[in-house]
This record gives sequence, structure tokens and C-alpha cells, in this order.
Amino acid sequence: MRLKLLILCLSLLLGPVACSTTPQSTATADPLPSWNAGANKTAIIQFVAAVTDPGAPGFVPEADRVATFDNDGTLWSEQPFYFQGYFALSQVHAMAEKHPEWKTTEPFKSALAGDMNGVMAAGESGLMQLLAATHAGMTADEFAASAKAWAVTATNPKTGMKFTEMIFQPMLELLDYLRSNGFKTYIVSGGGIDFMRAFVGDLYGIPPEQVVGTTFESRFSMVDGIPTITREPKINLVDDKEGKPIGIYRHIGRRPIFAAGNSDGDLQMLQYTTIARDPGDAWPRLGLIVHHTDAEREFAYDRNSHVGQLDKALDEAPLRGWLLIDMKNDWNQIYPTVQD
Amino acid sequence: MRLKLLILCLSLLLGPVACSTTPQSTATADPLPSWNAGANKTAIIQFVAAVTDPGAPGFVPEADRVATFDNDGTLWSEQPFYFQGYFALSQVHAMAEKHPEWKTTEPFKSALAGDMNGVMAAGESGLMQLLAATHAGMTADEFAASAKAWAVTATNPKTGMKFTEMIFQPMLELLDYLRSNGFKTYIVSGGGIDFMRAFVGDLYGIPPEQVVGTTFESRFSMVDGIPTITREPKINLVDDKEGKPIGIYRHIGRRPIFAAGNSDGDLQMLQYTTIARDPGDAWPRLGLIVHHTDAEREFAYDRNSHVGQLDKALDEAPLRGWLLIDMKNDWNQIYPTVQD
Repeated sequence: MRLKLLILCLSLLLGPVACSTTPQSTATADPLPSWNAGANKTAIIQFVAAVTDPGAPGFVPEADRVATFDNDGTLWSEQPFYFQGYFALSQVHAMAEKHPEWKTTEPFKSALAGDMNGVMAAGESGLMQLLAATHAGMTADEFAASAKAWAVTATNPKTGMKFTEMIFQPMLELLDYLRSNGFKTYIVSGGGIDFMRAFVGDLYGIPPEQVVGTTFESRFSMVDGIPTITREPKINLVDDKEGKPIGIYRHIGRRPIFAAGNSDGDLQMLQYTTIARDPGDAWPRLGLIVHHTDAEREFAYDRNSHVGQLDKALDEAPLRGWLLIDMKNDWNQIYPTVQD
Repeated sequence: MRLKLLILCLSLLLGPVACSTTPQSTATADPLPSWNAGANKTAIIQFVAAVTDPGAPGFVPEADRVATFDNDGTLWSEQPFYFQGYFALSQVHAMAEKHPEWKTTEPFKSALAGDMNGVMAAGESGLMQLLAATHAGMTADEFAASAKAWAVTATNPKTGMKFTEMIFQPMLELLDYLRSNGFKTYIVSGGGIDFMRAFVGDLYGIPPEQVVGTTFESRFSMVDGIPTITREPKINLVDDKEGKPIGIYRHIGRRPIFAAGNSDGDLQMLQYTTIARDPGDAWPRLGLIVHHTDAEREFAYDRNSHVGQLDKALDEAPLRGWLLIDMKNDWNQIYPTVQD
């Protein structure tokens, strides 16, 4: 530690470049090595340069460099179904012994058979029943422990990879790049806030207090003398579509200058982030959509997908100047290289 | 800036003391000059020393050094009535022209007469009517602008001081002291989250994303092509009593190791923060109650006060080891010295 400080001191004393606002990055290293050269990569780098240059008209004070990222389909994959859905199925299995009636009642019957289409056929009320049974009725600590334990071994039925390995290397680099330029990075996802806080944030270096998501009601009470938070089977915030700007307003209290999404669930967050509200609102703003175009290395889907549908936001992207990231052509790597 | 860095470098190179985990403070300077020497001041300093010493058994990683502070009566005064109440009255005045019926309807009639007791006599439903009328029905930006504008000139009817000057100097020092030791400081208050974010957080160096409070529902829509958040006359979270641990769970997602309050509204936050949950839960934890004992320099009240009642938590403090701060004897200064 001492040695590091000394080296930092010497570099500050000797090197004029290192005394810029971002001493941790050098001018030559590529901050986004998994991104192919092209208009999208250039636009990202130019945006960051514009907001961090104290002499530029678009300079944004560090405290206001808020970047929000959707999770499913933006930071990790979401096929063949949102990963949290598989967690719910595993919980149904774990709890089935205490609920013999589930063998004959939908959506639990389909859930026990591992039939995600059957679960979906039960519609929104069926999905809510499944969520209520698997995401509520336990303490906050118990729920977090279940999600953590599941994440250690659970694998994706399509790829056989661990869900935690199906995160996007280029987005990890983008998160790091923004943070090294003074941005505070947030997850703002339709996924469950406490599910994500249990292990998802760690995958991206995002602490729990910077994770915003769909939120259940909960209550506080003393149980055997121990302060206890219990999760209730009622949703407080659906952090999707119109709910995303609300989640941002409620949790962050600042309007982001950067937002990344991949579906119509992110449309309102992208609008809220990028559309100037008055002539005095002159900060540069960037919206980015991850377009799933790579059937070989990941999955290819957009307008007609049952998961992560991208339709309205795809139409609006060119009108708003949102970057449409073509996974197949913009990214030279999808998932991180796993060290054996 | 360059010069500051050079001086820091030289001190790092030359001074062994300055290379401790808290290079920004020196061993000799008193971090809490407005606190008189005594058991309470010593306990605070010992707690901070214990959680920041990497070699000590009570060491807490920086990311988990979460400190939560109530606002009304803990960071600023709350007499003769919660300051946000005066904001509500001023809003009633500003809006009265459009509401002729208020002249004859409670609680607005009393509000227009500046009669806080009359307002209180309308009970909880009356108070909710007042809050709904003054805190909802406008955009998020409009509301923030009103609160900011009010704060510039509004004065306390009892002291004649600006409300923004009635903040506690010793608590400012405590916030700084904790932050300089790697703590993240939060407001967790029964006050309105957006009222506080508009200007209160600035008084203490706490950014909007670290302010938790009573929250109204809101909705998102495009209004004339502009993404707009509108406040609704319905409460989403009452961040008081049992609501405080819920607010912490929802917004922070970590259990604090330090909490400060002054009333029974803080009882559950103090319990949640300080009571060990299992034998493995060995981090030092500190609860602190600001006891209003100084009728001369501030206000003296506790068990029978209509505002900031401190009764149950006063009984529980000695059992739990919470520090009971005696404002009269523990603090040599109440409010910051105003520079003319």
C-alpha cells in the first residue's frame, strides 16, 4: 500500500499526463477491447470525452454522471427465458414437498415439470402466484441466501453455461470505462431488486445500493427479539417500462445522462435519459440499445420475441439518436473468457 | 489542484502518520471540536477506530460502513413544528387563490391562518389532505423548484433564523468524521424524500441518492413530447417507525452499522442497526440518540412532546447501549457560526 502511494506520488510529481482528470487510464490503452472499431464505439468514446473535459461546453460535474443499465438482455443474456424465472422454478421444486396441491394446480404443475411455456400460459395472474410463492413469505435474509445459493451452480438449459457466466464482456468493459471516468453506474431492471442485489450486482462491480428493480412490499417486526424484515406477496414497484423512470426518480433522484437497454421495457428510461427538457438542458446525453443479432454466439431476436421484445424502441432509436449496438458486428467477444 | 496534489505527495513521502488508512486527518486534530470531552465523544471515536483498524477484530470493510441519520430533531431542529410543515403552509398560501373553498374548509382554513395547532386538530386525514394538496399534483421538477425557492428565505417563527441555519454543528462534524473514515452517510427520515433532496441533503453534504424518506407515488408520461414525472396524492412509503428499516432495505440493501435518531420514530432503525442477529454477527454497531435537553440554546422536550416524542426509545437506550447525547452538556455549540 505504502509502495503504491509512493509510486502514485512520483508519477504525480513527474508525469503531466497522469495529472489529468482520469489518471487511472492512459491515452494509448483501448478501454473497450471487446468492441470492434466503428461508429458505435467512436460515439461512446466521444460522449465520455465530451462530458469529462472540464474545458468543453458539454462538461458534466462528476456527481451528475449517472449511468443506468438494464440487466436482462443488456448486461447478461435472457434466453430461453429471463434467468430469474429459472430461479423461481428451482424454488418451486425446493418447496414442493410442503405443497402437495401444486402437483395438480397451475402454474405450479408446469413449473414442477420445468415447462416454462406452461407457466407462461397461466398468464399474468399465474406468474404473480409463482412470484408470490417463491419471492415472498420468507425473511429478507432467507431470500438473499436462496438466491446466492442458486447462483453458485444453476446452469442455462440452452447453453449449459452457468447463468453467472452469461454476462457480456463488452458491457463489463463499458461499465469499467464509465466508472474510471467518474460515472456512478446503476442497474435499473425489471428483475427483482433483492434477487439482483444477492449476487447479480457483484458480477458487474455494482453495489446493492446502486441496484434498482422490481420491489416487493415488506414489513419489519421483532421476531424472538431479532429485528426481522419479512417479504410480502405484494409488489410495490414494477420497475419496467413507465416504472423505470419512477424507479430512477425514487432511488437516485437525479436524471441519468447515459442509459443502456435492449427492449421495449427500456423505452421510457431511454426517453427520460436522453430527451432534453428545456433549452437550458444542454448536457450531452447518450442512449444505447443492445440489439441481439448474433444467433451463433448468443441469440438473435427482436420484434417478435416473447422475451426482451424490441419493437417500439427499435423504431424510435434512429429518431432519437440512440446507438443500436449490433452484437454480431460490434462485439468481438460475447462472454468473458472463463479461466479453468 | 496540482499544488494540492504535490503537498499531499510530500506529506505522504515524509510523514508516516499521514500514510494511515485515513490520510486526510491527522492524529492531533480534534475531528469533533463542538463535542465536549466525555463518555459519549469517547465512545464515538472508539467505535470509528474499531471498525477502521484493519488489524482489529471489529474491522468493517469500507463498503459496509453505512451510517443512517434521521433528519428532524437529529440533524436540524424540529420545533415548534417539523420544518416541512411550514413549507406546506407556505404552499397553501401560494395556491389559495385557485382554491376559494379553502377559506372555509379545514385543515386549509387553519393553514391559511398560520395556525399549526388547528391543522393538527384535523387529525391524520386532515394532514394527508394538506400533504396531498401541497406535495402532489405537480411535476417532480416543479415540486423541487418550490422547495428550493422556499428554503432560500423561509424563517422559523420561534427563532427568526432561517430553517437552513438551524442545523446542528456537532452533527455536521460527525458526518464529516464518519465520511473521512470511509463511511457512506445517509439520511433516513420521516420527512419527504423529494423535499429533502431539493435542498436538505446539500446542508449536510449528502447527495440525493443517499436521501431516504417518506415517498409519494408518481407516474411517468410524455407531456408535449417531454418525459415528465408527476407526483400523485398517495403515499408509497411512510419512512417512519417500522418504515425506516423498510426504507433502508429498499434503498440501501445493506444493514447500517451506525444509526442516529432522536425520537420514537427512530426506535426500529436503531434496533435494526444495532441488535446482533446471530453469533457470527460480530461487527461493532453504534446507536445514538440526540436528547433535546437545552431549553436555552435550542429546545428541551422528550416524553410528552407533540413533535419528536422520545419515550420508548429513551427507555430502551440504556438496555441497548445506545448513546444518549445530552445536547446541553455534550455540545459546546448548537448551530453553525453564521458568517456575516
